[in-house]
Amino acid sequence: MAVIVQKYGGSSVADAGKIRNVARRIERCKDSGNDMVVVVSAMGDTTDELLSLARQMTDRPDERELDVLLSTGEMVSSTLMAMALKSDGHPAVSLTGRQAGIRTDSSHNKARIERIDPQRIVGELKKGNIVIVAGFQGVTADMDTTTLGRGGSDTTAVALAASLGAEVCEIYSDVEGVLSADPRVVPDAVKLSRIGYEEMLELATYGAKVMAPRAVELGQVYGMPILVASSSSEVPGTLICKEASMEVRNRVSGIAHDKNVAKITVIGAPDHPGTAKDIFEPLARANISVDTIVQNASTDDVTDVTFTAARTDLVKALSIIEPVAKKLGAAKVVRDETLATVSIIGTGMQNTPGYAARMFRAMYEENINIELITTSEIRITCIISEARVEDAVRALHRAFEVEFHRPE
Amino acid sequence: MAVIVQKYGGSSVADAGKIRNVARRIERCKDSGNDMVVVVSAMGDTTDELLSLARQMTDRPDERELDVLLSTGEMVSSTLMAMALKSDGHPAVSLTGRQAGIRTDSSHNKARIERIDPQRIVGELKKGNIVIVAGFQGVTADMDTTTLGRGGSDTTAVALAASLGAEVCEIYSDVEGVLSADPRVVPDAVKLSRIGYEEMLELATYGAKVMAPRAVELGQVYGMPILVASSSSEVPGTLICKEASMEVRNRVSGIAHDKNVAKITVIGAPDHPGTAKDIFEPLARANISVDTIVQNASTDDVTDVTFTAARTDLVKALSIIEPVAKKLGAAKVVRDETLATVSIIGTGMQNTPGYAARMFRAMYEENINIELITTSEIRITCIISEARVEDAVRALHRAFEVEFHRPE
Repeated sequence: MAVIVQKYGGSSVADAGKIRNVARRIERCKDSGNDMVVVVSAMGDTTDELLSLARQMTDRPDERELDVLLSTGEMVSSTLMAMALKSDGHPAVSLTGRQAGIRTDSSHNKARIERIDPQRIVGELKKGNIVIVAGFQGVTADMDTTTLGRGGSDTTAVALAASLGAEVCEIYSDVEGVLSADPRVVPDAVKLSRIGYEEMLELATYGAKVMAPRAVELGQVYGMPILVASSSSEVPGTLICKEASMEVRNRVSGIAHDKNVAKITVIGAPDHPGTAKDIFEPLARANISVDTIVQNASTDDVTDVTFTAARTDLVKALSIIEPVAKKLGAAKVVRDETLATVSIIGTGMQNTPGYAARMFRAMYEENINIELITTSEIRITCIISEARVEDAVRALHRAFEVEFHRPE
Repeated sequence: MAVIVQKYGGSSVADAGKIRNVARRIERCKDSGNDMVVVVSAMGDTTDELLSLARQMTDRPDERELDVLLSTGEMVSSTLMAMALKSDGHPAVSLTGRQAGIRTDSSHNKARIERIDPQRIVGELKKGNIVIVAGFQGVTADMDTTTLGRGGSDTTAVALAASLGAEVCEIYSDVEGVLSADPRVVPDAVKLSRIGYEEMLELATYGAKVMAPRAVELGQVYGMPILVASSSSEVPGTLICKEASMEVRNRVSGIAHDKNVAKITVIGAPDHPGTAKDIFEPLARANISVDTIVQNASTDDVTDVTFTAARTDLVKALSIIEPVAKKLGAAKVVRDETLATVSIIGTGMQNTPGYAARMFRAMYEENINIELITTSEIRITCIISEARVEDAVRALHRAFEVEFHRPE
C-alpha cells in the first residue's frame, strides 16, 4: 500500500468541528487504500497561549522547559484527532514526536532533525492504524523533548514522508496553493499547478509565506513531492517537485516581494584586501543574514560597501557595523529603511537574457527607479522604493502573466 | 542530604502567582539543605477542561488517547514551576512521568504503578537540580502514556518518596490537615497533629476527602511518613504515620460520615448454603463495592439478606440483584435511599469495649435510631437516617472531644 503523509496546520484544527472535518478527509484518503500518517499542528492560537503562560512566569523562560510546555499543544490536537477517527470506527493512534522516532540535536526551541527511527510508525501502520503524529517536536539522545522552531510541523511532515518512502507529502492549510504573486497586491494572481523546489524556496524567502523553507529544502534533498492545498476545499493545490522536463524550465513562476529590507552603506572604507571580511564576519557571527552586497569601484583608495539585510535586523546590524567602520577608518555609515525588493522567480532564467530585459522595461514603463539589482540562477531581484513596490508587483505580473498558466 | 518529596495540588498551582508562591516555599526548603523532588498536579480546572475538549470530539473518548491528552495538564504545570525556580536562580528541571521512571501497567485511565526507575531523578538531584515531576502519569512497557486515575498525583508522590528513600512525603493542598470531623458539620472540628495510616484510610473512605486512599495505603506498605498541610499557610499539618507508641493506641481519632449510602434487602431468600454467594458474586463481578452485610436469623427456611453500597451504584446494583432474587425464589427486593453512615475511627478501639457503649449512648441521648451497626478493628459505624446524620456527627464529636487533643 502506498504511504501518504499529510500535515494539517493550526487553523485547520482550530476547534472540534474543524478536527472532525479533517478526520473525514483523512478517512476518505485511507478508504481509497492508502496507509496514512498525519502530522498535526497545535489548535489555533494554542502555541501563543502557552508562550504567554510562560511569559507570565518569567521574562526569559528556560528553553528546555519551554520546549516541553510548547510540545503539549500538538499532543492535545493529535489525541483529539485520533479520538475523532476512532469514534468514526477508523483504527487510529496518536504518537508524540518521541514515539514517532523523531530524533533531534539538543538546540532547544530550534532543534534540527538528525534522523527518524520509524519502527513504531511502521508497526502501527501494519496494525491498520491511521497514525497521527504531534508535529513540531522531537526528542534528544537524552530523551528530552525539543521543538523544531518556525515551520516545525511542515518539517516533521516532510522528514517523515522521506523516511517512510511516502508517495507524496501533502501540506494542508488555509491557502489553496502557491500563487503567482501576493493576492493582496495582485487580486488576479494565478494559482500554480506545479513549481520546482528552488523556485518555491525563492518565493518563500521573498515573501510568499505558504510553506516553511526548511521543509521545502528537505523535500528537495530527498526528492519528496510536496502538495500544498487547502484543508477546507477540494480545489487542487500546487505540487512542489522536481521539474518534469527541459521544455518547461525557461519561464517565470511568480512575482515575489518583501518589505522587510534595509540597506546599509559603509562610505569611504579603505580599498584593500580584508575590508569585506572585516565587515561581514562580525555580522555572520551575530547570525544576521545579508542579502545583496555591492561594492562600488574605488577612487582614491577608498570604496563604498553597500549591503541589504532584514529591516528587523537593522538595529543589531548597525550596532555591529558602526564600531567596525570606525576601526577601518571609514567616513561614515548610512542606512535606508524605505526600500523593498521585487523579484521574478523562474527556473533557468539566467540562461535566457530576455527575462531581465523584460523585467527592467516593465519597471521603466511604470516609472520605477531601480536602486540595486541582484540575481541568482532562478531569480532576478530589484531593490526599489517601498512606496512603489505594489505598483512594481502588478506591472511585473501583467508583463509575465502568460507564463503562469501552464499544462498540468 | 535528605530527600524530601513534596506534592502540590491543582488549587495550589492554579495561576502564575500561586506557582510563584509555591516556588518560594520549595526554594526555602531546598536552601535549608534538602534534596527536593516536587510532584505537581495540573493547574486549577485544567483536567476538567481537557476532558470537556475530549467530550466535544466524542461521547466515549478512547482511553489511550485520553491519557495522552490528560497528561499534558501536568506537563504544563511542571514546566511552569521549573521556569519559576530557574528564573529565581535555583537550578531545576521538569520531568514527565516517563522521564521520572514511573512504569505502570497498561490499564489506561486507572493505571497502577508497577515500579519506579529513579536513575534520571537521582542524576538530576546529583547535579543540584530541584526535580519537578508531572504527577498523575506514567508509562507502560511499550512507552505509551498512562494516567493513574483518581488521586494519581498523591500516589506519584508517595511512590517516588518510597523509591528514593525520602525522609517524608509532604502533600500540600488547600486544607490544613486532617480534622476530627467534617468542619461544615462540626465548626469546631480539631486538626489532628498525627494519625495512623489505617485510621486515615477509614477516614478517607468515610468521607474525609483529604488524601487519596491508595496513596495512604502505599505509604503504609512502605512505612513512608506523609505530612498533609496547606500550601498557603505555615500552620503545621497532620502527619500520617505508624503509631508511635502503645500508649496512644486506644483513642478516637475522628468522626466520619457518608451520605452516599443505599441499603438493599433481599426478603425471603432460601436459607441454604450458596445464597450469599449467588447474591454477592455477580455484584463483585460488576465492580460494585458492598460495605455492610447483615443476614437475619432464618425462620421457615427463608432469610433476609441486607447490604449497603454506594448510593451512586444503586441502579446498577438493583439491575443485577433483581433477576438473581427472582432466580433464588426470594419474595422481593426492597431498597432504602434515605440512609447515611456515621463512624468513630480509632486505632485499637475494638479491644476497648467502652468506645462502642459511649457511641451508642451519645446516639441514644440525641434520640437517633440505629438501623445497622458494623465494626472493623479501628472503626465503629452506625447506619442511621440521613436526616439525622449531622446531629449524630456533632453529638459524637462532643462525646469524644477530649480525645482529639493529644501531645505532638
